[in-house]
Amino acid sequence: MLYVPKEEIDTRIYKLKQLMEKSSLDGAFFHYKIDYFYLSGTMQDALLFVPLEEQPVLFVRKEVSRARRESPIEQVVSILSMREIIDHIQPKKRIGLQLDVLPYNDVMKFRDIIGTVEMVNCSPLTKELRKYKSPFEIGIMEKAASIAKKVYGHIPHILKEGMSEIEVGGLLEAYAKKHGHEGLLRVRSLNYEAYSWHILSGRTGSIVSQSDSPMGGLGLSPAFPVGASFKKIKRHEPILVDFGICYHGYQVDQTRMYAIGKMPELYQEAYTACREIQYRVLDKVLEGAISKDLFAYSIDLAEKLGYGDVYLGYKPHKVRFLAHGIGIELAEFPFIAATHDYPIEEGMVFAIEPKMVFPKKGACGVENTVLIEKGRYRILTDIDEEIVIL
Amino acid sequence: MLYVPKEEIDTRIYKLKQLMEKSSLDGAFFHYKIDYFYLSGTMQDALLFVPLEEQPVLFVRKEVSRARRESPIEQVVSILSMREIIDHIQPKKRIGLQLDVLPYNDVMKFRDIIGTVEMVNCSPLTKELRKYKSPFEIGIMEKAASIAKKVYGHIPHILKEGMSEIEVGGLLEAYAKKHGHEGLLRVRSLNYEAYSWHILSGRTGSIVSQSDSPMGGLGLSPAFPVGASFKKIKRHEPILVDFGICYHGYQVDQTRMYAIGKMPELYQEAYTACREIQYRVLDKVLEGAISKDLFAYSIDLAEKLGYGDVYLGYKPHKVRFLAHGIGIELAEFPFIAATHDYPIEEGMVFAIEPKMVFPKKGACGVENTVLIEKGRYRILTDIDEEIVIL
Repeated sequence: MLYVPKEEIDTRIYKLKQLMEKSSLDGAFFHYKIDYFYLSGTMQDALLFVPLEEQPVLFVRKEVSRARRESPIEQVVSILSMREIIDHIQPKKRIGLQLDVLPYNDVMKFRDIIGTVEMVNCSPLTKELRKYKSPFEIGIMEKAASIAKKVYGHIPHILKEGMSEIEVGGLLEAYAKKHGHEGLLRVRSLNYEAYSWHILSGRTGSIVSQSDSPMGGLGLSPAFPVGASFKKIKRHEPILVDFGICYHGYQVDQTRMYAIGKMPELYQEAYTACREIQYRVLDKVLEGAISKDLFAYSIDLAEKLGYGDVYLGYKPHKVRFLAHGIGIELAEFPFIAATHDYPIEEGMVFAIEPKMVFPKKGACGVENTVLIEKGRYRILTDIDEEIVIL
Repeated sequence: MLYVPKEEIDTRIYKLKQLMEKSSLDGAFFHYKIDYFYLSGTMQDALLFVPLEEQPVLFVRKEVSRARRESPIEQVVSILSMREIIDHIQPKKRIGLQLDVLPYNDVMKFRDIIGTVEMVNCSPLTKELRKYKSPFEIGIMEKAASIAKKVYGHIPHILKEGMSEIEVGGLLEAYAKKHGHEGLLRVRSLNYEAYSWHILSGRTGSIVSQSDSPMGGLGLSPAFPVGASFKKIKRHEPILVDFGICYHGYQVDQTRMYAIGKMPELYQEAYTACREIQYRVLDKVLEGAISKDLFAYSIDLAEKLGYGDVYLGYKPHKVRFLAHGIGIELAEFPFIAATHDYPIEEGMVFAIEPKMVFPKKGACGVENTVLIEKGRYRILTDIDEEIVIL
């Protein structure tokens, strides 16, 4: 098992403290495991406290010996109850708490424990840090991408006419797990759960659901109304496989197209347009264009190519992003989206996914996880992009 | 696909209003999908408002046509932004909000929208209702249990010496999904994620992790430190398979033991003790004993049988529950636990799981999802309990 190295954690804490100083925070608590994993290297049941002037303290409820092994944080304190933390920290006036994810009741209880202080949401700080990936993180994402390549390479061996979408999804998931996929994808949301098995064939590709995606799929029931369904896969349908992979907490996301027998020209041509949009937007990223202009540029391209009505979904279900940053969360900074106004810079990793959805017919699209490095883009999910005909 | 019938939803709303009246609430908002699914029948992106005196209103962001098809709620309103709800509701003085799960920032924004009112946590109301299962719900849980039976019956066909735990877990998951398992289990927690593939062999059965379980397993990385690992399965090891199944949102949970070649007597005998504890506690449940007394009784039994040190984990990692209620969440009321003081009644469903963990050696145990009906208990997860020797 790979542990996060001490230098990596030291650098992250150092940069965090710079942002804390800018926000005039004299301490910050990280309750949410995604962020304390980023800052400490462990996902054991814990709470990380970072005082501006002193060393961070990791409070661990369970299991402390694993947390000590996994985390380079020097001060690891075993606690049974949250009330004990007060014996180990100095009072602060203005503190950070993860108010975007911590439930209201938990915030109230925690405020009682630490005494009334000024509370500021500190999640924007780790979100900002996590926008840029380190060489260590990129190494893990490369490994995740190599698992993805194996999984996509395995599709032709299992996909057959008459199988249900979920049967294919389950077998891919089994194969992916055997090679290191952790099975769960992670999103920062009360109600949305990410999942790997997004396999849509023919008409299910045109079905929209609760997710912020141009196509949601039918799913298995009203209680899981997204992704692969019991629909049987037929010949001559576009089969869209959007199958996220997670390795050591880091995710990569990619989409490729398959068909059993010839794929109708409608989708072949639309897929060619998706690829063109992808590469032209990536070129524009390198010119330093800002996010919302990149998004507008892609809309313009789609319209010129004759796909304005179906690009990123049909009305009223069009989505307003073309790319989402990706790492220990499936959707993090940076985004290429209608309302974001920053450039995509060196060290950022994002999943770009131009997709076309034809109402009541089906969908197609391409997706890649891409790194910006040395003034170029590098597609981490280096999987052949041609439509695979079985 | 099975939709929740109108009479079912009407009854749930009727009973909810009775509890609202007792709590002096004149309205309650359900933001969390687990609970608005229970009260409305849909998991589309929505918000349910239940006024004490009027009909409930379901506000849907996405996707409204699916929500209308799935939910028998008559007033379904399509919204783009939360701000629009104010046009459709009458002002209330004292309202319920799900303060145990709704993030702090969301509560603050929502309070701004509806105007300052007295806020009370309304999650205890749905938790109380969900403690009892209706015949409709039991029917779905029976179907989930029938999938579980198929999955456990499939284990002897795939489990072989030298396979990794995760490989077995992945193949079981694939098989389960093909038969209707939805792939995700659900828990009410910011940081804990449930998962199906809990396969522990030999020493990994003695590894504790962040989860509130006597054994957590090694998992795949510090970022997913629970459940099946890359450890290869050997001959003569106890192999514990605790594999939750979810069908139409309803979960069942069960544990059975396997070995390739003879299982060491230590585990055979401890497993016999687990079964004895299970059945003796179930008999006591029927006598109307209250939860914490049932728990104490089980501890007493374990001690008399000579397993005091290893029952429900070893010190300091012993857990303080023997059973968890189960339904649309993996852990809900009722519990058989050290601090709960109600009896287990007619219509309740729970997963009872006496387990023994031998430090640095391994674990064994049995688990079943059980319904109390007509003054008897009925094991829904009707799978042979003998140790399976391969």
